[in-house]
Amino acid sequence: MKHDYDTIKKLALEFRNERDWQQFHTPKDLAEGLTIEAAELLENFLWKTPDESRSPSAKTKKQIEHELSDILLFLIYLCHELNIDLFEAAADKIKHNAEKYPVEKSKGSNKKYTEL
Amino acid sequence: MKHDYDTIKKLALEFRNERDWQQFHTPKDLAEGLTIEAAELLENFLWKTPDESRSPSAKTKKQIEHELSDILLFLIYLCHELNIDLFEAAADKIKHNAEKYPVEKSKGSNKKYTEL
Amino acid sequence: MKHDYDTIKKLALEFRNERDWQQFHTPKDLAEGLTIEAAELLENFLWKTPDESRSPSAKTKKQIEHELSDILLFLIYLCHELNIDLFEAAADKIKHNAEKYPVEKSKGSNKKYTEL
Amino acid sequence: MKHDYDTIKKLALEFRNERDWQQFHTPKDLAEGLTIEAAELLENFLWKTPDESRSPSAKTKKQIEHELSDILLFLIYLCHELNIDLFEAAADKIKHNAEKYPVEKSKGSNKKYTEL
Repeated sequence: MKHDYDTIKKLALEFRNERDWQQFHTPKDLAEGLTIEAAELLENFLWKTPDESRSPSAKTKKQIEHELSDILLFLIYLCHELNIDLFEAAADKIKHNAEKYPVEKSKGSNKKYTEL
Repeated sequence: MKHDYDTIKKLALEFRNERDWQQFHTPKDLAEGLTIEAAELLENFLWKTPDESRSPSAKTKKQIEHELSDILLFLIYLCHELNIDLFEAAADKIKHNAEKYPVEKSKGSNKKYTEL
Repeated sequence: MKHDYDTIKKLALEFRNERDWQQFHTPKDLAEGLTIEAAELLENFLWKTPDESRSPSAKTKKQIEHELSDILLFLIYLCHELNIDLFEAAADKIKHNAEKYPVEKSKGSNKKYTEL
Repeated sequence: MKHDYDTIKKLALEFRNERDWQQFHTPKDLAEGLTIEAAELLENFLWKTPDESRSPSAKTKKQIEHELSDILLFLIYLCHELNIDLFEAAADKIKHNAEKYPVEKSKGSNKKYTEL
């Protein structure tokens, strides 16, 4: 079976309901959880050069896949709890970024490029 | 237009190509960026109680939508750079979590519940 | 023996020199390491209420002590690499914060209190 | 006046008492705050190479000093709230690290060197 956002969301909510964990999933705690998983992702690249980070070992890549998955699951729970449409929000943010970083001023430069 | 993962991915890659920013997008830097955005998300809940975090103001909710979007964009770029299928990885992780946290031992408890 | 900042700094630099690890300690990597340790600290309080976080178990408290220590060690290395006097910088920052948050406007309020 | 840990701690507690902010300073929130500041520190090195991170501009260096100071202040508050002696904890952690990373096995290698 091929999975997509909606099928993963369904699995994630079922997983949580079976364990009665929604009670712990306040946005504050979910945001903590997401930050912790992001740092665990980052740990896979610590002390590596940027170039080395492009070629993780098979074992490290598996670990990265797990952390990216946890981050996605927290995104899904947060959007569900706060009633946010993630993809409409993202389309809006890309439009916002396009105005903030016009092509002619941004091309090939990492100056002032402190986010996105 | 209704957006989904694939249309957002397309927009995100176009945005990046137009600015010639792929050169800066090493996995190490993308993981840094994702962690930074996660912390910016968390900042919206700092000094708030878990209960207060359930009802953000309209302004705070907009900010949260922006941070969640940035996190999604970094997820998309990381999966693209490392050739990872995010949803297959997530399905695999949910299966892994289900074995790690059996329903009968985990129901309604936050004990040992230190991740997801 | 009673330890203080200077004796810990001396031990930390000796530890590093013996292992020839200074080569990996770029500010970028040290800042990554510090962020990772901060998230590991935070993990001790995940899914706990703010009140519960005041009374960690003995085992959790030991873990917290380890994470706070790692954070201190990264602070020490960063200040050493970038030639920063941490305590003069902190005195300056407290002065800065006192101007940003005047007592009469800030007393007992968490409004706009989004950083320290 | 030359500052040290104890004089900064005194200033930090006075600053907080004047604003009646201790009520917000649960360990959970302080750990969130510390993580947020760590990520703000990291932002100064995002999209930079490890080598570039060694030579921040004067403006960036000032920003780094501010973030390091905020991290120190959160460390101080956390140790105060949880009754932890930071320097004794750090001496203990260095001893622990020395056993975990014996010189002969660790010298000049970033292998398995996933924390401090």
